[in-house]
Amino acid sequence: MDTPTLKIISLGGFGKVTSNMFVYELENDILLVDCGMGFPTEEMLGIDMLIPDISYLKDKMAKIRGLVLTHGHEDHTGALPYILPQLANVPVYANRLPANLVMDKLAEYENMPRTVNILLPGNPLQLGQFTVESVRISHSIPDSTNLIIKTPAGTVFHGSDFKFDLTPVDAKLPDIGRMARAGDEGVDLLLSDCLGSERQGYTPSELTLEGTFEKEIADCEGKFIVTTMSSNISRWYQACKIAVKNGRRIAVSGRSIERNLDVASRLGYFPIPKSAFIELRQVKHLAPKNVCILIAGSQAQSGSALERLATDDHKDLDIKSGDKVVFSSDYIPGNESAVQTLIDSLSRLGAKVVYSDITDNLHVSGHGSQQDLLLLMALTKAKYVLPIGGTYRHMVQYANLARSMGYSPDRVLLPEANQSIQVSPDRIGLGPTVGVRNVLVDGLGVGDVGNLVLRDRQHLAEEGVVVVVLELDQNDLSSILNLELVSRGFVFEKYSSSLLNQASEKVRQIIVQKKGKIESDRHAKEIVVEHLGKFLFDQTHRRPMILPVIVEV
Amino acid sequence: MDTPTLKIISLGGFGKVTSNMFVYELENDILLVDCGMGFPTEEMLGIDMLIPDISYLKDKMAKIRGLVLTHGHEDHTGALPYILPQLANVPVYANRLPANLVMDKLAEYENMPRTVNILLPGNPLQLGQFTVESVRISHSIPDSTNLIIKTPAGTVFHGSDFKFDLTPVDAKLPDIGRMARAGDEGVDLLLSDCLGSERQGYTPSELTLEGTFEKEIADCEGKFIVTTMSSNISRWYQACKIAVKNGRRIAVSGRSIERNLDVASRLGYFPIPKSAFIELRQVKHLAPKNVCILIAGSQAQSGSALERLATDDHKDLDIKSGDKVVFSSDYIPGNESAVQTLIDSLSRLGAKVVYSDITDNLHVSGHGSQQDLLLLMALTKAKYVLPIGGTYRHMVQYANLARSMGYSPDRVLLPEANQSIQVSPDRIGLGPTVGVRNVLVDGLGVGDVGNLVLRDRQHLAEEGVVVVVLELDQNDLSSILNLELVSRGFVFEKYSSSLLNQASEKVRQIIVQKKGKIESDRHAKEIVVEHLGKFLFDQTHRRPMILPVIVEV
Repeated sequence: MDTPTLKIISLGGFGKVTSNMFVYELENDILLVDCGMGFPTEEMLGIDMLIPDISYLKDKMAKIRGLVLTHGHEDHTGALPYILPQLANVPVYANRLPANLVMDKLAEYENMPRTVNILLPGNPLQLGQFTVESVRISHSIPDSTNLIIKTPAGTVFHGSDFKFDLTPVDAKLPDIGRMARAGDEGVDLLLSDCLGSERQGYTPSELTLEGTFEKEIADCEGKFIVTTMSSNISRWYQACKIAVKNGRRIAVSGRSIERNLDVASRLGYFPIPKSAFIELRQVKHLAPKNVCILIAGSQAQSGSALERLATDDHKDLDIKSGDKVVFSSDYIPGNESAVQTLIDSLSRLGAKVVYSDITDNLHVSGHGSQQDLLLLMALTKAKYVLPIGGTYRHMVQYANLARSMGYSPDRVLLPEANQSIQVSPDRIGLGPTVGVRNVLVDGLGVGDVGNLVLRDRQHLAEEGVVVVVLELDQNDLSSILNLELVSRGFVFEKYSSSLLNQASEKVRQIIVQKKGKIESDRHAKEIVVEHLGKFLFDQTHRRPMILPVIVEV
Repeated sequence: MDTPTLKIISLGGFGKVTSNMFVYELENDILLVDCGMGFPTEEMLGIDMLIPDISYLKDKMAKIRGLVLTHGHEDHTGALPYILPQLANVPVYANRLPANLVMDKLAEYENMPRTVNILLPGNPLQLGQFTVESVRISHSIPDSTNLIIKTPAGTVFHGSDFKFDLTPVDAKLPDIGRMARAGDEGVDLLLSDCLGSERQGYTPSELTLEGTFEKEIADCEGKFIVTTMSSNISRWYQACKIAVKNGRRIAVSGRSIERNLDVASRLGYFPIPKSAFIELRQVKHLAPKNVCILIAGSQAQSGSALERLATDDHKDLDIKSGDKVVFSSDYIPGNESAVQTLIDSLSRLGAKVVYSDITDNLHVSGHGSQQDLLLLMALTKAKYVLPIGGTYRHMVQYANLARSMGYSPDRVLLPEANQSIQVSPDRIGLGPTVGVRNVLVDGLGVGDVGNLVLRDRQHLAEEGVVVVVLELDQNDLSSILNLELVSRGFVFEKYSSSLLNQASEKVRQIIVQKKGKIESDRHAKEIVVEHLGKFLFDQTHRRPMILPVIVEV
């Protein structure tokens, strides 16, 4: 008899922070974990988001027994509207808050499956050969879980985003006992969040923010304006608690915050009385010192409420001297410049701005630091470990931690992005690669923008475009009937006319010189691209994209 | 008699970190301080650099008595090749190292003035009504200075980039005595570097890096690879000193480092024996543990030596297991993602990478922290202060420091970018604004890329372009003889053909519908842009740039 072999694949790619989606495949059964969106990198011009690549699943749909979500963050659930319609009748499971957040979101789409089954921690669920049990952990959103996945090939602890917060705001402790018991029962492989592996010590408790807000609100003479990630329900709760205590009414600016707080309130996870809230348009009728604003846009997202406020373009709010803006957040890599520009703008408008470069304790991470990561290893006593949810440098730091705990190098798995993991009673290790690529979403298009299009966008972005329309005599392709050049994003118009006139002249000369030698439209195009490109580079040291269009008359 | 009034203008704009260039104007005399380049912001697509806007000087050339450079960094000298040719015979002055660095650079250009006069600290120079004396301070490059500028309208202390390093690597202490004496003689206005105003305490001495390099080299079994800003001559010296001490030969990869070290060596500012260096191509003949590499590209600059090394595309170097790469630098805002991607790539190749997120004391700033800034205020006892060299949020923090020292708000000047400062015996304060804009350099073009071109580049970058060539009958503009659509950067080719076919059909229908109503080429273009734009948006939720070209036959 063959030994059963479990295959684990990351459809968003290993070594990524976002786009979380994992396949657990054993013979005729597949279990999916999470279905998150990813953020485009800087060179992915014009792209709205990334989603996991499910082409691996295309011919295996009938094997999928279920999709389990670990928690309610967008990078673990945000790709559902794109992917769920392709998963036919696959049942989806999640803890109470994530289940409700997702159902709320899916209700905005037409023809979308909308049922998410509640999977409470401690209630094992049988999905084919998989026994899946969720375990309560702490993170920056309530009802977050890790998963114990038992299979005939071995037991895997799926340690999605977590930290050990021993004084959580909602008083729900991580279920350390269950993790220890899992360790006693035997864990073969631990997949562990590694994003915080560069930080020493433990990640501080969310509760430490209470003191920070108390201190910041105490000397605020105007509006008290707080921003953090929209999904950070615990943080909003802390800000509201302190606002209420200090006699301020609360207004929310940002659709995503409203949605998150609505769902959390409905489930009793946001115990702030409705009477504490006012509508945004009422703000101007209250004294600024009686107001607290929860505002979206802590990462300076374009078009966000905070960006509009900072550019004095917000319908209901403005900055007055005495107002204070608290950034209860860290910079997400890539956003630093934009956030700092926002801080400059808010300062210019007269706000006192409080941010992590000048004040400590404004933010705590939802991800465990080195001691948290070591503790999960110690509890699960896994034979093998595999860092997830971080980039390669975080994986390397996690590997260093594991080694300090006695793991030999072969027991720390560091896969390439598209490598599979194999788990069997005989062997746990890296397996063959699978085809996983970035799937880009741009407007309504999913996957219709690839590397070629991005390369063109990069070229257009840096150098602009010159369109050359050549009307040629079909009987003599070197006889020009008409010639027009149009440029965009290349040179300033007032300088460009003489340059473009010279360029036209250049094209005309070249075509005429080639009399009798132009074989086809295509040949004419090649001639234009080559010679015009060289001419423009000599004149400007730039290489605009040249688009020749030949019209034969 | 009118009281003399000194006008101070920042040609790069106040509230900027780079592009440093200041005008001091008093009646018929103008003194210029610095002439630096700036870095483009993210939305300035394709732009190579910014330079100060000297249009204010255009009709005042005859009044300019001299240009004094405070130190040798590019953001204080890098615009000289662009601006010097327009300054006719204006004499340039600088301390020894910056004078030589600049002369070396200018020698690469044709028809460029090449003489920089040596202005040693403590030797007052008369330029029209200005008496300019430079004062030795510490920074991250030797021979840095501040300026005492005496005028009939008042005395200004020009506190360009500085910190108080009391154990400098070159043992040349900041001339605290001269600063104190300037304070006793009376300073009316202090312009002060404020970039470090968010950091508490003093900036640590450059000397602390010695211990860091010692520790990092000790456990390095392969090549010891160090990167920092190319201009940081003190840092390179420290790395070389430790390399020599540990029996390693040094190779340099990066033209800019070579140039800086050449000039510094020639002047005796880089006392490492020539025999310690080897050519890059010799590296492969030595055992890795006998090699130290100084490499350019600490900010992940595209095409830099370090980027080529990380992508395994370096002619003479590669990464082998055991090699260590030390980032002795901080992220410059905007570069974080790129640097972190570089760290990931180097880690994947097997290097041990040491960077500020995981290791302390890898870098010290060249800019003073709060205590340094307070000390300069205390020494100069200036009546008024004006923060320079930082953005608005740094200026606000500097203002807080000044207030803690007893400055009333009216004595802390916080100008808008293009505001002038007025200094007279009666009054010191903000003056009228002057026309100062960003001057963008793109290839050979200076100022030929403006906001319109950038807006087009942004549009092209995010959405791509669709060119529509319409050949119309000149006697009936709704009669289409030929119609061609070409797109770039819009949709993936394999998906685009059916979309573009539908789009062609749409254009054809619209034009035919308008039979008899198309008045002109221009009208035809408007119709195409409007209807095709709407069609493509409905289909894709994208808004590509539509470029219609009408050919009448």
